[in-house]
Order: sequence, then C-alpha cells, then structure tokens
Amino acid sequence: MSVRFATPASSAYRHQLLIRHILEGSIAAAAEQEIVYRGEHRQSYTDLLERVNRLASMLKTLGVRPGETVAVMDWDSHRYLEAYFAVPMMGAVLQTVNVRLSTEQVVYCLCSSTASVLLFHRDFAPLLDAILPQLPGIRCRVLIADGEEFCKDGTEGEYEELLSASHVRFDFPEFDENALATTFHTTGTTGNPKAVSFSHRQLVLHALSLTATLASQPDGQGFRRGDIYMPLTPMFHVHAWGMPYVATMAGAKQVYPGRYEPELLLKLKRDEKVNFSHCVPTVLQMLLGAATVAGHKSIGPWTLLIGGSALSSSLQETAGTFGINVLAGYGMSETAPTICIARHDRNAADDRGAALRRAGMPIPLVQTMIVDPDMNPLPADGRSEGELVLRAPWLTQSYEGDVAASEGLWRGGWLHTQDLAVIDQNGAVAIRDRLKDVIKTGGEWVSSTQVEDLIMLHPDVAEAAVIAIPDMKWGERPFAFVVPIASAAASLTADLLRNHLVAFVEKGLLNRIAIPGNIAIVENLPRTSVGKIDKKNLRTQFEASDASKA
Amino acid sequence: MSVRFATPASSAYRHQLLIRHILEGSIAAAAEQEIVYRGEHRQSYTDLLERVNRLASMLKTLGVRPGETVAVMDWDSHRYLEAYFAVPMMGAVLQTVNVRLSTEQVVYCLCSSTASVLLFHRDFAPLLDAILPQLPGIRCRVLIADGEEFCKDGTEGEYEELLSASHVRFDFPEFDENALATTFHTTGTTGNPKAVSFSHRQLVLHALSLTATLASQPDGQGFRRGDIYMPLTPMFHVHAWGMPYVATMAGAKQVYPGRYEPELLLKLKRDEKVNFSHCVPTVLQMLLGAATVAGHKSIGPWTLLIGGSALSSSLQETAGTFGINVLAGYGMSETAPTICIARHDRNAADDRGAALRRAGMPIPLVQTMIVDPDMNPLPADGRSEGELVLRAPWLTQSYEGDVAASEGLWRGGWLHTQDLAVIDQNGAVAIRDRLKDVIKTGGEWVSSTQVEDLIMLHPDVAEAAVIAIPDMKWGERPFAFVVPIASAAASLTADLLRNHLVAFVEKGLLNRIAIPGNIAIVENLPRTSVGKIDKKNLRTQFEASDASKA
Repeated sequence: MSVRFATPASSAYRHQLLIRHILEGSIAAAAEQEIVYRGEHRQSYTDLLERVNRLASMLKTLGVRPGETVAVMDWDSHRYLEAYFAVPMMGAVLQTVNVRLSTEQVVYCLCSSTASVLLFHRDFAPLLDAILPQLPGIRCRVLIADGEEFCKDGTEGEYEELLSASHVRFDFPEFDENALATTFHTTGTTGNPKAVSFSHRQLVLHALSLTATLASQPDGQGFRRGDIYMPLTPMFHVHAWGMPYVATMAGAKQVYPGRYEPELLLKLKRDEKVNFSHCVPTVLQMLLGAATVAGHKSIGPWTLLIGGSALSSSLQETAGTFGINVLAGYGMSETAPTICIARHDRNAADDRGAALRRAGMPIPLVQTMIVDPDMNPLPADGRSEGELVLRAPWLTQSYEGDVAASEGLWRGGWLHTQDLAVIDQNGAVAIRDRLKDVIKTGGEWVSSTQVEDLIMLHPDVAEAAVIAIPDMKWGERPFAFVVPIASAAASLTADLLRNHLVAFVEKGLLNRIAIPGNIAIVENLPRTSVGKIDKKNLRTQFEASDASKA
Repeated sequence: MSVRFATPASSAYRHQLLIRHILEGSIAAAAEQEIVYRGEHRQSYTDLLERVNRLASMLKTLGVRPGETVAVMDWDSHRYLEAYFAVPMMGAVLQTVNVRLSTEQVVYCLCSSTASVLLFHRDFAPLLDAILPQLPGIRCRVLIADGEEFCKDGTEGEYEELLSASHVRFDFPEFDENALATTFHTTGTTGNPKAVSFSHRQLVLHALSLTATLASQPDGQGFRRGDIYMPLTPMFHVHAWGMPYVATMAGAKQVYPGRYEPELLLKLKRDEKVNFSHCVPTVLQMLLGAATVAGHKSIGPWTLLIGGSALSSSLQETAGTFGINVLAGYGMSETAPTICIARHDRNAADDRGAALRRAGMPIPLVQTMIVDPDMNPLPADGRSEGELVLRAPWLTQSYEGDVAASEGLWRGGWLHTQDLAVIDQNGAVAIRDRLKDVIKTGGEWVSSTQVEDLIMLHPDVAEAAVIAIPDMKWGERPFAFVVPIASAAASLTADLLRNHLVAFVEKGLLNRIAIPGNIAIVENLPRTSVGKIDKKNLRTQFEASDASKA
C-alpha cells in the first residue's frame, strides 16, 4: 500500500489527542458551572482548572515524574475528578484502585501496577495500615481527610493542605497521544485481577464518540449541555464509564456523592436537580427501595444508563413508575467501557421497552461482529447467536504482564468479549449469555439462559438451571435441573418438559440441538452466598451422578 | 519526557481513524434511510454502500492505485457523496474541483494536483474540450451524463453504465490514518489558488467533533439523528463543510440538489422536509428573494448554519420572519473547515441574536488564541483585538508545493487565520475584520471597519472608508475618506468628525490611536465591479495626493 502523505510545514503543529484538550475546551465555555461534592462543597470549573494545576504541582514536589504511577483510593469526589485530569496531563499514569476488592487483591493491584504515590481517603487508613508492609513500592502517601481531623502520621500530609501550599500554575507538557493515561484491574471470578490500561488517545476518542452518541439520542435517552450529571458507578470502575470526561467536555454541572448512601443519593438527585446517571441494576434496585421506604412516589425526571448486567423488564417498568427512564448500555473494563448504547426512535416500529433493554447500537467508530467457536462470522439476522467480538479505537491493547491472556483476548485481531450475542438487521446488539454459561454442541452455541427461560414458561416449573456436560459426540450437551411448583411435585416429568420445548423448536424459537438430553427434576437448586444459582455446585452434582457414568 | 506505553498483544488490532469507519457504522443503523438527488433519484444507505463498492471497483479497473488522485467536477449529488467515500477508502486522493474558478485556474488546479482520472458532469464537457490539451496528466475521463443522452467520445464511458458493469464487492484495504484523503484549492484573491489537503484522521476527527457539537446544541440550533440535511454550500467547497460525513455518520436522510436553482431548492426543502442546511449569506439572500417572488410567507422550519462571511442582523431578522433559524459558524478552507459554531443557551444572559451572529464557541479539540503583531498572546476579555490563531487535529499541514506560504500559515506553531478577532470570557469568538483591512499602528491592531462604523454613526455621513497609510513613527496610520449626505455637503468637516470619534474614545469604545490622522471629505467612493468599495483605488488616490507628500 503506497498511500500518499502530506508534507507538513516545519512549524506545523502536530496535534496529539491529549486529555488536557478535554479540560481546556470546557473551562472557558463553562467557567462558572458548578461541581458539587455531597452538597457540602461547591466549586466552579475555574476552580477545577486551578486545583488540577495545584495537584500536578503537588505531585511534582513529591517527586512524581512522567511515566510513574499514582494510585487513588477515594469515594466519588471532585478530588477524584482532579486526579482524572492532573495525573495523566503531567504524563503520569492514574491507577484507580477498586476499594471493594479483598485485601489480598488490593495488595496485588498496588504492587503489580508499580504505584509509587498513593492518595487515600481516611476511610481506607485501617486497611492501609494493615497492608503497608506488603507495599514496598509506595514511597509516599497523601491523606484525604475529607473535612475531618485525622492522624497524618506516616503520610506526606493532608490533601487540601498540600494543595493550598502547591503552586497554582503547572506547565503541562505535550507528548505522544499513545502515552498511558490510566490503569486499573478487572475483577475476574478466577485468579488474580487483570490489569488493563488506556492511553490519552483512547480516552479522548472514547469521550468524543460517547458525547456524540449521548447528545444525538432522542429526548430522555441522552445527555447534553444543560443536563446535570451524577455518577452511580464508582469512579474507580472504568473511569465511571468515561462520563466524568464527557460531562467535563460538555461543560455540564457535575455532582459527586462520595460514598454511596441511598438517602444521600436521593437528596442530591433532588436538591441538585440531577437528571442523568449510570449504574448497574443492583444500584437501581437499591435506589428504588430507598425511595419506597422514604414514601417517594416519583424521583424523576432521571435518565439512567444501565450496564454491568442485563436489565430486566420488571426493573425497567418499576423504574418507569418512579419517573426514571432507563436505557441499557454495553461494555466491559477492557473496552473503556462503552461499545453500545440502547436507543428507541420515536417512530420506530419496534417495542420501546425491549429496544431500551438490549445492549443497543454500536457508538461511532465501534465495529461489532458475531462469530462461531471457530471464529467464522455469523450473519446479523437477529437470530444467529455467536460470540461478540469487537474493534474500536479505545480497546485495551493487553493485560499488562499476562501475555497468554492478552493473546487470548485478541485472538484473530478482534477483542473477544466472551459474551454470546445476536445482532439484528439494524446493527442492534442483544446479549444472550456469558460464554462460560454457553453450551458448545455440534459446532453451535446454545445459550443456557435461553433454555432456562423457555423451561420456566411451563406452568408447573418454579426454577430451572441448565449446565453444559461433556459429550463424546457433540462436544458438550445441555443438562437441565428443574424444580417443580409444589402442586406439581409428583406430576412434572422430563418428557412433559421435552415436549414443551419441542413446541418452541417447531415455532422456530429454539434450535433443536438446544433441547437438553437430560432433564433432572429436583427439589431445590444450590445457591451461592449472594443468592445466585451455584452452577459450579450443579456440575459437581452431575459428576457424582449416574448420568455422568452413562 | 519518558512517558509510558502499553505493550500491545501481538494480535491486538491497531485501530486507525479511517473514513470507512464513518460509513460502516451508519449502514446497518440506517439501511433503509433515504438519499435523494433533485427529487428525481432516490436510494437507500444500503444502495450507497453498494455503489461505493462499485465505484471503487470501477476506478480500480481504470487503473487507479493507492496514492493516485481522482478529480471530480460535478454539482452536488449522490454521486459526489459516493466519491467522498470510495476514493479515500481505496487509498486514493479525492480532488474536489471548484467549478466556479476561471478556466486558467481550473487548469492550474488539475495540473498541480497530478490528477490522473477525472469524473465530470456533462455541463463541464465544453470547458474540458477547450482545456484538455493543457492536461496531459489526465489519462482517463468518466462522463456523468446525469440521465441524458450525451456524447461519450474520448471518455471511458458513462458513470452509471460503468458502475452497473463494475463488481459489487471491493476489498477496501486498511492503512495509516495519516494517509491523504482529499485535496482541493483555496481561492485567494491574488496569485494562483493554493492546494490544501486533509488526511483520513483529520476528516474523521472533524466529523466526530462536529457531530458532538451539532447534536449538543439547543433545539433549533443543531443537527441530530432524525433531521434532514441538504447542502447549500457546494460539495467542491471544503467537503460541503464536512456535513455529508456528519449526516452519514448520523444515518440521517440526505437531499442533494444538483446545480443550485432557487426554485428547485425551495421545492426540495418543502417536498423532502429538509430542516438543516448550511450556506454563505449570499445564498440565503438568494433563497429569501426567491421565496418572496414565489409569494411564500414562511419556508421554515429550517436551521441554516451560516459561514464564509459575516452574518448581518438585518439578514438574520429577515430570515427569522420566514421561519429560518440562522446561526453563524467560523472556519476556512485550511481548517477542514469547522472551528467555531454559534450557540445561544435558553437561560443565557446575552442577546440571542447577537450570540448566534458571532463566530461562536470553539468545537471540541479546537484551541483558539488571539495574538498581537509580534505574536504575544492577548487576553480573552471581550475587548482586546488580535489575530485569531488556531490549533486543532484537522488543520491542513501545508500548502502543497508552497513552502514559504506553508511556513507563514504555521508561523510560531499556530495556524494564522489572518482574521482579527476578540474572544470573550466564555471563550466565544467574534470576528472583527480581515487582517489585510487592519491597520497596525503603534504595535496595536486597529480595525478599519470598526472606525468606519463609528464614523457612519454621525448623522451627516453617507459613507466612509478607512485605509492604512505608511507612517515613519507609527508604522501605519488610519486615513478616512468620508462622503457627506447631500444636505451636509458644505458643513461637514474633519474636525467635526474627529470630535465625534473622541466621544467614543471617552466612552471606552475606541482606542485613541484609532482616530484617523487624516479625514478627507469626498464626493463619492470608488467601487469595484461587484459594488464593493475599492480600497486599492483609494490607496492609489492617497499616494497621488498632497497628504502623501506631507
């Protein structure tokens, strides 16, 4: 390929996509716009710019150099927002520590990221005291006392005090847009957390594409200048889905709630007139519960972008009765995170509720594809199910220090989500299952949750769980465990359920190969400590059963 | 600067910002959306994708290779849109030929760009016949007959016939995002046109930032999914301000009017329900004239982005009575072109009309600054006037083949607009004057139009023109030519006018240094052939006068 290139003037400015440009553009346009912390502290965008400069000066005084990692352990705050800008803008790398991880995992994350400076909220002082001997790399700590008197022993001092003493102007350097800006760890269910990282270029492009998408959404489904933002996904979790960068770029009012307390969240929502947030379904449920307890009939208008796990129609409906517009999004830690946002156009023929529940439409510059187990592309026909694989300018390029996992993530030049999905003729993505809950049988994917859902449509079924069992001929086969309702305990049989499923095959709603070879009627299903069906336990039960010897 | 970089997995996809990604994202999301040509031809986005593939196949058959230049001479059409995508996507360079230039300039543009293939509308066949001997580089021509029988002699054939015969799938390659995508010529008032060029990266970032901006605008001031687009700035002029890329990315309905005919434009606006366009003030005036002749009271709702020259309040008001929302934008050929877009927020304190008339707010990733003649930065205080200089990811890197002009454009690492501007505390840019109409006196800029406007506020003045004259001490000094109204022909004196101006100095509205040293009372002002005041002639008059010998 001998494409042609321009010959730049020797003095031409080679513009790099740096995080500083997100901040610079917004300051003048929104100089007096507010950034609020818990309703206790208010500052303007002009203050933000000054504090970002002071924070960089402070970190430089502490010896931080470009390329060095600065870790933060804080609740959602204006301070965290300052770190989102100051640390990358000085050429250093921001590590957002997931404070909900186990002690061992926090130690692992801080060590593996080679963080040398740590900003920590007083709430994490006891944890830090316990693990400090295991963190030889941390050469200085800054205490965030958050307005209270607190012991500063062993630290460089208190955040606000150091900030006031630091120089108000920092000469932010220019550098390659591919320089690392942030790093954090995904929370896999097995093994150590994996480190992902994002460059300036990646975060700027993510912010720009997400801004374009959210601003283009129909009314009540988006975020635009004039809207008021509060995160309900922690800032340590994939940069709060990138929204603080989007909100800053828009010059929007921002509200940071500190540690999440349902009553305070509802108060901030009301007092500060928040109308856009994002969260996982569990947080939405918590909010609705708190609203119910407080006797609120409506807490809207509020647009909530929902991600992390599937949005159920019942949760969507309940939220609607409280005046909350929910719409789903799709992404993961490895994808910065936004890949898709749900949308329902006013005159569209499809069902509004369903359209807003599915993962939605890829945002600009994202390429999606579904593939079979051998990575053959599958059609976007609204029926074919395959693993969702991705390309976009903001996907993590590797798991730092884990070559095997990195190559697996990028097998064949596409990022593997390990999610089973369908794509319809309009490009809308719907997630069906996690791939580990998927059964590979006869070269095809079978979604265990789809089979479970169809079994549960039988009036005599109370609960169902489907797992994959090894099979010489088919690779794997589905195996169903079914709990009947009390009145049908004696009458429900595997054959009845098999006929029930065949009816769906005949209607074209289910692949014949998805009908479980074995259907065991059981009294109850094992649960994990958080109440989810324990499929690992079911697999063990299967291995111990006669069926496994058959 | 030793910033840190990620270590990508060997299989990780290095995403390049290529124009193909603009098209790919939109097709699925808007497969059935319409693209209309003059109301005569209608096609879907699916058709667009197919025709883009066929066009690339056709060009490949004609021997076009990556890096080669393909020139187009056409009116605004669905075909032009196809070329916007197919030519850059295959790695070639699209030259958009300004068909309004003089014959000599068209020859110059086609030769200097090294175009080897030319797609031309039958309307330009006579012109081409005349200049073909001067175009040895053009090795093949494709006739766009546009639905009529037309002589194909000397050409490779007719566009639609060749398209139907070409392969329906083209394997578009991937390459460096800095590869050239487009080139065209600016129309300076002196010397040969200058060639500017833009890369894939530049056009993708421009489209994304413009999409984010227009979608974020208050209602009636922007462009979003669901709006209907028709260009009123020709597609050969700075990619119709980048809007065809924006409209395609949004999956919006697009209407192309062919050659601009006022009655047809109004018919298309009405029949196709167009509600977003862009044009220069002259085109808006032409439209309003045609609407008046046709007896239309309203032709709205229609949002018109106005650029190219200043938007007057009277034109804005007249447009408003016809139901047209006008808002100004700012840019130039060298800037892809968008730099600023005017905006007025609902609750803003400033005057809506004035806010929408000024150049407006820089769009994301644009940095603006005003500087004095020695390139010292001036404050953004709403009063200081300086040359507007720019940085953004989509500014042309040079004038191809003109090193001196390229270095001048980029003097000091900022792109020089040669426009005198003020920037207010909110970052809003207002253009005051072309730098060549500006007087450099005592190290400061004086806007000749500002002085003219203030002189004209005197009740006895009919017309005024201010030029710069050389001055040993001050560098330059303003010199005013003033035509009195008939009844004041005998009474108006230079001293009266000087006192009139001093009053503005005392109110802080004018710099004392801006008061002309010489004010000549004259009977009339010389005019150019298009009716503008001929300042060149005035300078000659001055040189021949006694004042120049003083």
